[in-house]
Amino acid sequence: MTGHAPFSAAEYDRRLTLTRKAMQKAGLDAVFITDPSNQAWLTGYDGWSFYVHQGVIVTQSGEPIWWGRNMDKFGGRRTCWMGHDNILGYGDHYVQSSEVHPMQDLADVIKSRGLEKAHIGVEMENYYYSAKAHEVLKTCLPDARLADATGLVNWQRLIKSEDEIDFISKASGITDKVMQVALERAEPGMRKNDLVADIMHAGITGVGDDWGDYPAIVPLTPSGLDATAAHLTWNGDKLREGEATFFELSGCYRRYHAPLCRTIHLGTPPDEMKRAEIAQLEGISAGLDAARAGNLTCDIANAFMAVMAKHGIERQGRMGYPIGLSYPPDWGERSASIRSEDQTVLQAGMVFHFMPALWMDTWGLETTETILITENGSAKPLSNVERKLFVKG
Amino acid sequence: MTGHAPFSAAEYDRRLTLTRKAMQKAGLDAVFITDPSNQAWLTGYDGWSFYVHQGVIVTQSGEPIWWGRNMDKFGGRRTCWMGHDNILGYGDHYVQSSEVHPMQDLADVIKSRGLEKAHIGVEMENYYYSAKAHEVLKTCLPDARLADATGLVNWQRLIKSEDEIDFISKASGITDKVMQVALERAEPGMRKNDLVADIMHAGITGVGDDWGDYPAIVPLTPSGLDATAAHLTWNGDKLREGEATFFELSGCYRRYHAPLCRTIHLGTPPDEMKRAEIAQLEGISAGLDAARAGNLTCDIANAFMAVMAKHGIERQGRMGYPIGLSYPPDWGERSASIRSEDQTVLQAGMVFHFMPALWMDTWGLETTETILITENGSAKPLSNVERKLFVKG
Repeated sequence: MTGHAPFSAAEYDRRLTLTRKAMQKAGLDAVFITDPSNQAWLTGYDGWSFYVHQGVIVTQSGEPIWWGRNMDKFGGRRTCWMGHDNILGYGDHYVQSSEVHPMQDLADVIKSRGLEKAHIGVEMENYYYSAKAHEVLKTCLPDARLADATGLVNWQRLIKSEDEIDFISKASGITDKVMQVALERAEPGMRKNDLVADIMHAGITGVGDDWGDYPAIVPLTPSGLDATAAHLTWNGDKLREGEATFFELSGCYRRYHAPLCRTIHLGTPPDEMKRAEIAQLEGISAGLDAARAGNLTCDIANAFMAVMAKHGIERQGRMGYPIGLSYPPDWGERSASIRSEDQTVLQAGMVFHFMPALWMDTWGLETTETILITENGSAKPLSNVERKLFVKG
Repeated sequence: MTGHAPFSAAEYDRRLTLTRKAMQKAGLDAVFITDPSNQAWLTGYDGWSFYVHQGVIVTQSGEPIWWGRNMDKFGGRRTCWMGHDNILGYGDHYVQSSEVHPMQDLADVIKSRGLEKAHIGVEMENYYYSAKAHEVLKTCLPDARLADATGLVNWQRLIKSEDEIDFISKASGITDKVMQVALERAEPGMRKNDLVADIMHAGITGVGDDWGDYPAIVPLTPSGLDATAAHLTWNGDKLREGEATFFELSGCYRRYHAPLCRTIHLGTPPDEMKRAEIAQLEGISAGLDAARAGNLTCDIANAFMAVMAKHGIERQGRMGYPIGLSYPPDWGERSASIRSEDQTVLQAGMVFHFMPALWMDTWGLETTETILITENGSAKPLSNVERKLFVKG
């Protein structure tokens, strides 16, 4: 272990072994991994350099190879566990050029390792593997067989090790601090951006020795009509009496997340929102109870929807996703989903953001939990923040 | 104008006209734009929803069409200037599914607009247009001709309008505030994450009515050996006497940026670093002087490198990029580059992050400027922060 990777050699070994088994099952000689979360999970690599092409090559033997821009090789040496011989860089003239493409250099690396005729998995559906990258790599490796390995590594991340659960629990401690700050300081007349500044400050200072890292999504904090939309960020408007604001926030500990949503209403909420609160809380309890080892991801969604239907509220779609290690733009792990179409078998050690938010015509009500699937019984919510619609004034 | 888009109808009209001219020149009937910065530049769309497939369709007539996830349609209505009929959504079952893909829905939209046989530009080299997306779209539009339109919109953004320069100037005011906080509070014994928390707080509170938005890159603040790497983020270690820390920071005003780097050394810097400081400052002056309307981007890089060579320092590679409106993971505009291979003609109204940082074997020295190309004379740095190596204690 040469760099400052956050986990033990045994933990990285576990991850490599899982990945290699999945590769064997898929008949792949090698994979080229571009998802920054998968790269970090396999090698420890950590840096804000994913805006240029970079990735990790895994074969059935030896250390993984981290490959990226020359200047980021030094970040690789500081953060990856592999030897420096397995941290490779390409020249700066490849960066954002319309003449040459970094995948030309990657093809040379792949050939130099004797993989020019190999069956190589690439992540076809990833932010950091562009349509152009695929086209260039295919052209430069005419004898290789490129196959879609989207999700191959992501699915190996689904069951967390004890060390990872420890990291997520630390992130959850930071989340609770951040949410308390949001709920305590929100009041009519406060500018939204000033509130977000306090939220970010609380998250980055962290809790004691658990220093805060940057979450993969910025604070989502819309109010009133803006809260009918799921993904608006903030502005400089003041919070107003008579409006609900939802907070979708996560602490981050060494790239691990534990998202949480709560909603606050300034002034007396409308009856319709109070009725929705009752239904939502009952639905969440039903969902937690269904979130048991041996059950399926769809059982959680179906349990929640059944309660909603009973209360006359229609809520369909996706209600959550696995979480853990992540980089922008998404803190979900992009493998299973909590939705009626998804039949993933729940197992102890899985961690989900159970996200049964309600977006209505004129307001939004987000109350969610990060939950750990346990050996026995219902899922364990990691947060200690009270589960309810908060009301102030 | 139905939503809260930040610019006037005339400004969006200017942008559409430029884009349509570029489309005509490229022989394109339509473009499908996935770069979130290009989407916002054309339509005003603003939300943290780029982690799912979304984009903007532009043809030669009518309003652009914003297309995304159903739940983000409501964010589109709140932020885009177009009528609600031109804000379209796809079902949640398409999201991160291995069975179906949102591009199937997009293909239906394209067909419904009579474009099934059109010549359509797509951004092949973009974070938000995956290899898989392209494959599915191609398959679903067998009679269309898909062409690479990477950069087509980005190049139209190069010369800023007065309104945009005003936004960038406001961002620069926030940057200066943030940099002053970093330089004032950095001291031996302070935890890096606590310093970053203060930096973020200063940036999001903003300056007066100019409220702070989230920058497209988090604060880069490495110290000592970590500063030999360009893109490491922070941790919970304490700042130490005898180490240099560089700050690469930007304020953000309504998605517009003005990045700036300064370096601080705690304690007396080594002679080698002081000599590099003298060379770097002289090189930056030479670069600013070469950054004149009518000159080329490479002239800036060559002027800087000539001074470095005189001082016996080798510095090659990219030394800057245009900046303005951006979303994560990059605040560069991905069109021109300040490097010896690039021959873009400089024109008044262009704004660059001139970024001639030095990364040496055991330390890094980053001193940079956001610069505006003017009608006459050398470029105007927007920041008021003193240009030097800061030394404390």
